[in-house]
Amino acid sequence: MSRFLSCAYAGLEAYTPGEQPRDKAYIKLNTNESPFPPSERVVQALNADEVRDLRLYPDPDCRILKEKLAEAYALKAENVFVSNGSDDILNFAFMAFAKDRGAAFPDISYGFYRVYAELHGAKYVTVPLDGQFRIQPEDYASMGRGLIAIANPNAPTGLALTLSQVESIVKSNPDSVVLIDEAYVDFGAESASGLVTKYDNLLVVHTYSKSASLAGARLGFALASRALIEDLERIKYSTNPYAINRLTLKAGVAVIEDAAYYRQNCRRITENRAYTIEALRELGFTVTDSMANFVFAKSDRIGGEALYRELRQRGILVRHFTAPRICEYNRITVGTRQDMEALVYAVRDILAK
Amino acid sequence: MSRFLSCAYAGLEAYTPGEQPRDKAYIKLNTNESPFPPSERVVQALNADEVRDLRLYPDPDCRILKEKLAEAYALKAENVFVSNGSDDILNFAFMAFAKDRGAAFPDISYGFYRVYAELHGAKYVTVPLDGQFRIQPEDYASMGRGLIAIANPNAPTGLALTLSQVESIVKSNPDSVVLIDEAYVDFGAESASGLVTKYDNLLVVHTYSKSASLAGARLGFALASRALIEDLERIKYSTNPYAINRLTLKAGVAVIEDAAYYRQNCRRITENRAYTIEALRELGFTVTDSMANFVFAKSDRIGGEALYRELRQRGILVRHFTAPRICEYNRITVGTRQDMEALVYAVRDILAK
Repeated sequence: MSRFLSCAYAGLEAYTPGEQPRDKAYIKLNTNESPFPPSERVVQALNADEVRDLRLYPDPDCRILKEKLAEAYALKAENVFVSNGSDDILNFAFMAFAKDRGAAFPDISYGFYRVYAELHGAKYVTVPLDGQFRIQPEDYASMGRGLIAIANPNAPTGLALTLSQVESIVKSNPDSVVLIDEAYVDFGAESASGLVTKYDNLLVVHTYSKSASLAGARLGFALASRALIEDLERIKYSTNPYAINRLTLKAGVAVIEDAAYYRQNCRRITENRAYTIEALRELGFTVTDSMANFVFAKSDRIGGEALYRELRQRGILVRHFTAPRICEYNRITVGTRQDMEALVYAVRDILAK
Repeated sequence: MSRFLSCAYAGLEAYTPGEQPRDKAYIKLNTNESPFPPSERVVQALNADEVRDLRLYPDPDCRILKEKLAEAYALKAENVFVSNGSDDILNFAFMAFAKDRGAAFPDISYGFYRVYAELHGAKYVTVPLDGQFRIQPEDYASMGRGLIAIANPNAPTGLALTLSQVESIVKSNPDSVVLIDEAYVDFGAESASGLVTKYDNLLVVHTYSKSASLAGARLGFALASRALIEDLERIKYSTNPYAINRLTLKAGVAVIEDAAYYRQNCRRITENRAYTIEALRELGFTVTDSMANFVFAKSDRIGGEALYRELRQRGILVRHFTAPRICEYNRITVGTRQDMEALVYAVRDILAK
């Protein structure tokens, strides 16, 4: 830290991304990437001519992609915000809506919510998950906060709320923005996208990093009422209007045009998830009913951190968190069937020692 | 604006990027892009295999690119910060260093400085350029501000400070961060990069958008003392750690490996700039001695806005600003020789009417 840094940030604890070791080739099940490449239509869209056009700025309004997304979700372009990954939207939302009137989110959820609240000096409360790691919608009734952030499915548990549970939270907080972070929604949960024209306080956030196989391209989007989208645009045009790479905008359009390929990938991942959950339960693990592209599991025979280390030694990376309620668990990304068989084999081997 | 937006941003006036009309093909001389494509090495680096790898997150630490940049500037990787365009760095710098102790910058400069100051609630003073639009270094002696932001060359004038003038500002403000925005430095001005190991309060900001022909890729970097870089990293890891596209990181490395190509482009642009300045002066224009990839010019025979409109009608886009001191000027990007001949031809035609 320099002697020049504003005291507002002196105590700030930044987010820790999943490790990206380069010492050897791992089976990477720690950052919830897709095991499948983007579709060939994406590969073709990002051709040499497009690379040569990188001399030109991208369209800051992302008009073509917004229109495509609007069509896909039966909305208008004015209901769509496009960003440099969904973290951008989360950051803007905490800045725009939580700064004055505070925020609320589950005690166990995406770790970045706390970081954003602290970064923008927003007072926040964390709402405990119940004993089975479930979000109880009634705990969020009439919160009186500027922003309520809920990941659905939640991370790192993978547990999902039903659409009517989400709607009950939105309905009971008419003076709060309710942000539903649907990063993992395409793997089996219900999206609240259809409700954004019904409730002016609902902000639904999506990412291309998981089901669209584009973690490296940096693309996210939000769906909401026109006024909420205008607020996000105002923040974007006051920070970094040309935030999104030209090629990424092209890739985003190509993904929408190739929906069948991505739906098939999601099906394969949910099948591999079912295989993994079953295999781990057979080995005595407690595993949540994840609706995401990861499983969340603990063994009664080996500690969470020990299992993480043993797997790492065997060339398999999973994500271990140190927070007290979840430190005996690991979050394991669902990869290919082969990846998951290698995982189960390694776990069996570790437990047999 | 929604009823949920924090009052901190209710009056915020966002930055207005240059227009990107799509009604017809223009000669685009309004956003200071390069007329030359990125090098073939960049095109080859961004191949189909790399596109398929977009399923994976980028390295948030940008290690390989940082090491390349450090080598190119004879620094250590710890002196390099990499970002999603240089606007990202400017935003972070105002947030980190100006929030508590305010900012200072020229009254006529990159319009975003004011937006960042207002966004982060930083008190700021603007220091008037002199009658010839020059920055007077003595006006910046001992400012007692958190952040002093100077574009060198300045925009939209193109006028540059010498290295010793820059050093005098850095030296006389040991308790302020002095940010030198070198977006346009490769077209003839002197860079302060060599001073970052000498002064712990100097932050030099570069972009790949101009001389590196990568406006559409979104890549910027900063050079500074280790402690200042750590501050920027802290903000980045608290907002959007995976901010930079994987392909963009590859492109950044390829540019450094192809330095000769880019130097040649800069030479061609400075030649075309000299041609344009001379031709406009022959037509009676007042033109600054620009060291950037644009010229800044006013006619005594036609108003600034009228000329902008007439050129637009003839298919040539230039940038017109409405601020009182500069509203009779236009900022004209230096393109290919052919572009500039078309511009001069059009101007002659307009004046002959």
